[in-house]
Amino acid sequence: MHAGIKEKRELDLALIVSEHDTSAAGVFTTNRCAAAPVTLTKRHIRTGNIRAIITNSGNANACTGVNGMSDARDMAKATAEALGLQANQICVSSTGIIGKPLPMERIRAAIPGLVTRLKPAGGRSAARAILTTDVHVKETGATARIAGKTLTIGGIAKGAGMIHPNMATMLGYLATDALIETSALQRALKSAVDASFNAITIDGETSTNDMVLCLANGHARNSIIKAGTSSMDEFQRFLTDGCVDLAKQIVRDGEGTTKVIQVIVQHAKTSRNAKTIAEAIGTSPLVKTAMFGQDPNWGRFMAVIGRARVPIKPALISILFDDVAVVEAGMGTGVESERSAKTVLRRQEFPITLDLGIGHESHRIWTTDLSPAYVALNAHYPT
Amino acid sequence: MHAGIKEKRELDLALIVSEHDTSAAGVFTTNRCAAAPVTLTKRHIRTGNIRAIITNSGNANACTGVNGMSDARDMAKATAEALGLQANQICVSSTGIIGKPLPMERIRAAIPGLVTRLKPAGGRSAARAILTTDVHVKETGATARIAGKTLTIGGIAKGAGMIHPNMATMLGYLATDALIETSALQRALKSAVDASFNAITIDGETSTNDMVLCLANGHARNSIIKAGTSSMDEFQRFLTDGCVDLAKQIVRDGEGTTKVIQVIVQHAKTSRNAKTIAEAIGTSPLVKTAMFGQDPNWGRFMAVIGRARVPIKPALISILFDDVAVVEAGMGTGVESERSAKTVLRRQEFPITLDLGIGHESHRIWTTDLSPAYVALNAHYPT
Repeated sequence: MHAGIKEKRELDLALIVSEHDTSAAGVFTTNRCAAAPVTLTKRHIRTGNIRAIITNSGNANACTGVNGMSDARDMAKATAEALGLQANQICVSSTGIIGKPLPMERIRAAIPGLVTRLKPAGGRSAARAILTTDVHVKETGATARIAGKTLTIGGIAKGAGMIHPNMATMLGYLATDALIETSALQRALKSAVDASFNAITIDGETSTNDMVLCLANGHARNSIIKAGTSSMDEFQRFLTDGCVDLAKQIVRDGEGTTKVIQVIVQHAKTSRNAKTIAEAIGTSPLVKTAMFGQDPNWGRFMAVIGRARVPIKPALISILFDDVAVVEAGMGTGVESERSAKTVLRRQEFPITLDLGIGHESHRIWTTDLSPAYVALNAHYPT
Repeated sequence: MHAGIKEKRELDLALIVSEHDTSAAGVFTTNRCAAAPVTLTKRHIRTGNIRAIITNSGNANACTGVNGMSDARDMAKATAEALGLQANQICVSSTGIIGKPLPMERIRAAIPGLVTRLKPAGGRSAARAILTTDVHVKETGATARIAGKTLTIGGIAKGAGMIHPNMATMLGYLATDALIETSALQRALKSAVDASFNAITIDGETSTNDMVLCLANGHARNSIIKAGTSSMDEFQRFLTDGCVDLAKQIVRDGEGTTKVIQVIVQHAKTSRNAKTIAEAIGTSPLVKTAMFGQDPNWGRFMAVIGRARVPIKPALISILFDDVAVVEAGMGTGVESERSAKTVLRRQEFPITLDLGIGHESHRIWTTDLSPAYVALNAHYPT
């Protein structure tokens, strides 16, 4: 619903409720200026027995000091009262402008109405209510036969691609009817987030409010999923697929983005090394502007690989734009292949493979190009 | 002179010669794809007794494999022959496009003519011959009374600001008539570079060819400068001032740049922490686009400080745009101060101070804004 947090008459407050007790897991921003709702929700997840998520857009409740913390607590309390629950059963999450107090009167006034509007088909409205500068709603849903039952997963996310990442906290909420041990769910969510939300890089910024939550209420009555079992492996894939689906929707969104680029670093000494290079490439302004310009400027890739402070042997490096090798044995393959590479770069989505040739580890991320529109939009976003 | 390395009829080859034996020091790129001339010059500096620097623009001789190395060696050899010296008395340095072979026939043919054109007043032409996409020539010169004599220092540099940093290798060549121990000179140069060339950040990229060299030939006949003496302290300031002068000229250059911003991080726990945060701010696309937009968006600064993985206490942080405090105790100071901050941001040069309030260490760098012109220029630079 519209509670009046955003100035425009847009949806800005959403409520997700489970009718049953849940296992809950969360992955949170590593930003040391984490917003009040992040701190509060971490605490509530730890106490267990989460039943609902209250989430607003338009105001991040970040850099708001002790008042911010008491506002986050009040949001949990008001939601708990309206639902007949305890405050520590509520996750609180906010996104939007930094450094302004939440309009708590309006939020308190809106919550009872939000509860009466709860309905199974309300996911789309909730997905819309968490957006800030996003253009598109981001949703996922799937079923799979796991542990003897058909399990369902649904999720929504927000993150405005490359336009306003600091206004554009990355949020993801997933819910499933799977019965799963809490510790197994936490491990599965962490792993799924690493391969999805943590594998997309827009401009290297992390927000004060990033949060991905997963609630599992066991309503499917499957035999309980535990760590180290084959049904855990299946559930891991199920959850990861849902998170990757949402994460790629985030990358695709954003008016500044004209390309979605999968960066694969392979044959690195360690997976950490592979990740370091993938992220250096994915955040390099010189690489990203070249991609916007559809310019197969492989010298920029070599220079970034070289500055990543990771062991390499330049003479063993290959670089492929899709299946076109532009660098082999550390040197350019010539004018012909650069011409073929240009055809690849004209596409909206393509993979780039950096083969270091010195080990067995790999890492994959998704990134975007860097366009003048990104700069223009971020320069003139009103504070 | 124009040797024909650049297609346009512009100066592209320069020679710097000392008539006397020198102490020589060098600081080199940490990029692991370092170009052939970097590798060769490091070796020659180590053997001592450098007498000349041969340097070209238009071609970086980087990612050129074993042929690139033999080309660099040939440049040293041809220069040594024309000057009646040994090849290992010559420093070689190149900047320009990556991955193409040097036109060695043209370079070999040009060197004897370059030697006949050597003259004391040739510094300006040399400064021009090392430019690639730079707009302005970068020179420095000063004298100081140190160790009982008047010492002179001169220097030239290149680096095209924020336009084409990978084509725009940062090069600096300094020469002085000071008499100084080689080890003291090396230490002084490293320290001067850390406070100057290594304290400017344009877009976080490091080139394959970066190199700063200093030759000291003792012609001033001062009593020799040694580490740990008061004349060493004076020489250190003298050299650092020259390097800072050149480095700031690099930041100011480049059509994409509209602002030169001094970022000062103070009261950090360690100087390394201060440096990490200064560089995170100096390379943040969100901060830099806000600076271009003259927008005192302090929330972006807080978010970057928080993601830098450095110990902080958000509630102790202050942020000042020049002398206008926009954040105190981790929170915004209000609409009034944001209005004053806007006036600061309209200027072409200003300092921003981030006070962490938890220690005694500080670090200072210079950075630029990020403009749509940067993106447009880098997207369409021909390979």
